[in-house]
Amino acid sequence: MRATFIYGASDVRVETVPDPVIQQPTDAIVRVVRACVCGSDLHPYHSMPARGHGNPMGHELIGVVEETGVDVRSIRTGDFVVAPFAFQDNTCVFCREGFQTACVHGGWYGSPETGGLQAELARIPLADGSLVVVPGVDPTTAARSLLASLLALSDVYLTGHHAAHMGRVAPGKTTAVIGDGAVGLSAVLASRRLGAERIILMGRHPDRTDLGRAWGATDVVAERGKDGVDQVMELTGGEGAHVVLEAVGHMPAYEQAYGIVRPGGVISRVGVPQYEDAPVGFGSLFGKNATLTGGPAPVRAYLETAIDQVLAGDIDPGRVFDRELPLDQAAEAYRLMDTREALKVALRP
Amino acid sequence: MRATFIYGASDVRVETVPDPVIQQPTDAIVRVVRACVCGSDLHPYHSMPARGHGNPMGHELIGVVEETGVDVRSIRTGDFVVAPFAFQDNTCVFCREGFQTACVHGGWYGSPETGGLQAELARIPLADGSLVVVPGVDPTTAARSLLASLLALSDVYLTGHHAAHMGRVAPGKTTAVIGDGAVGLSAVLASRRLGAERIILMGRHPDRTDLGRAWGATDVVAERGKDGVDQVMELTGGEGAHVVLEAVGHMPAYEQAYGIVRPGGVISRVGVPQYEDAPVGFGSLFGKNATLTGGPAPVRAYLETAIDQVLAGDIDPGRVFDRELPLDQAAEAYRLMDTREALKVALRP
Repeated sequence: MRATFIYGASDVRVETVPDPVIQQPTDAIVRVVRACVCGSDLHPYHSMPARGHGNPMGHELIGVVEETGVDVRSIRTGDFVVAPFAFQDNTCVFCREGFQTACVHGGWYGSPETGGLQAELARIPLADGSLVVVPGVDPTTAARSLLASLLALSDVYLTGHHAAHMGRVAPGKTTAVIGDGAVGLSAVLASRRLGAERIILMGRHPDRTDLGRAWGATDVVAERGKDGVDQVMELTGGEGAHVVLEAVGHMPAYEQAYGIVRPGGVISRVGVPQYEDAPVGFGSLFGKNATLTGGPAPVRAYLETAIDQVLAGDIDPGRVFDRELPLDQAAEAYRLMDTREALKVALRP
Repeated sequence: MRATFIYGASDVRVETVPDPVIQQPTDAIVRVVRACVCGSDLHPYHSMPARGHGNPMGHELIGVVEETGVDVRSIRTGDFVVAPFAFQDNTCVFCREGFQTACVHGGWYGSPETGGLQAELARIPLADGSLVVVPGVDPTTAARSLLASLLALSDVYLTGHHAAHMGRVAPGKTTAVIGDGAVGLSAVLASRRLGAERIILMGRHPDRTDLGRAWGATDVVAERGKDGVDQVMELTGGEGAHVVLEAVGHMPAYEQAYGIVRPGGVISRVGVPQYEDAPVGFGSLFGKNATLTGGPAPVRAYLETAIDQVLAGDIDPGRVFDRELPLDQAAEAYRLMDTREALKVALRP
């Protein structure tokens, strides 16, 4: 099969490798209908030291089950499925508490052992917990927009939803979203769904913030740093936002977040932090009783509900995909996202 | 009147100064029945550079209203009152949202302008928002234990309660409390009131942890650092605590907190952080979706309910006071708390 590997910064290759096979009786093999490139894939694309062997890439897919291990119960050959970006048994204590990304038997795609999902075929560990069937959809005849919205549930939309959920977005609360990437825009859509009336989107790419407005952003703030903080404080009558959804992961975004959160408010992060230490003392979080929350989205916890919403036409999260390329052009997909020529690129094997 | 001042580390003096007077029409003057020394008062006691003029000390009192400004409506001369450790109007937007320590017109005691409450008399700004009447109690005849429990509502017990409230302590959740000082012990009592069945108290002073057990701690862990983390993880079957209440404020306590919080759990801090930066990235909070919350307790938000609980005999938070001294011996009170000979000392003018 063809699969995507990274050999170092800016060096993405699609290569022919052996097809994945069932290794555990709980595995499934899925034929990929669509995969895609994630903002987090750009971190190694920026900075990974060059090396002689490639690392498999990709953690988002929709596809059709090709084969299942003997212990797989809820998934059958031929099922059309969405795979959350992490695998999990969905039965352990942390899964039951709704934090499947901390599953005691779970893990991440993209290692030599687990493989990547930017490929023609993928091995899905713990298939009963790690795949959710999309009922009544034939991917060979489904509209491209429907496939895109289902693919968005694998990570990006439900990561935005996780931010809003952990931030306790609710009617009457002013929400600010930092970042107009695909996750930030998804956080806008999710916040609207959760009832936020005032949604301030901080971003400066008009084509992106336009989608944010279409999804419910009531205000757009292009300024960054102190100017951005001042602008949000002015928009909120000097009070700040009840909820700040931080969808970037860099320190300036964190600083902006605690600058605009109001006393007693919540900062919810889903951008993977590119820092370990950050201000949390009296001058940043503690003094105003600000709460800091968030982490890797337990997509599995939200997936059935979101599939229903997509199938009912209630949400259209697939609009973050502004390009679709053949899998063999994965390197071009990375380049387009890295240069911001594309917001998010779907890959079609 | 007599009032307490600090001139530098280990230099506390009780001096005769002019009585406070009404400065604003919203002020009240209160004759102090009991004041006390707070753990946070020990920070300047440890490290304040010596200087020629004293800084007024104290932010906790119960007392009798002696005089009110012309705009004070809800408080009358002769009322027996509790003062939260911060003053507030209790009407601004942040007060209405339950975060009175962020009141736009509020502030802190202990500056030359506001004065301290370790004194015979105190000026209370914004008296309608900053004093709560204790109904039906005559402080001249009330039991010493009742006065102690009411005094504990001025800060220490409701700071412990705030930790538990922000941490969302609830039935079925395992709670760990870091610190066996008066606030940590109060957090144990508050957690029990909020329904926690399992309460692990991390502390190593048996006389203090004994009070913790009396108030509901089911386990006591004396170890610190990695050993302490290992011990809590073992007690929780490797899962960690749902809620960690951090009542110390030093970095080792913070590190212990993120070491023992389970995925999706909450760290709630009420020990004033003696650091600004701390780990919050993938390896500490983000990777396991841990939430960090807490801050200065909005005592005012919880005070009426707590007064009722004390008067009904449901809680006895005054047990943290193991010594009572005349106001003139305030320096000795600081010394006793600093050397840990006393847990918390009440001062009687």
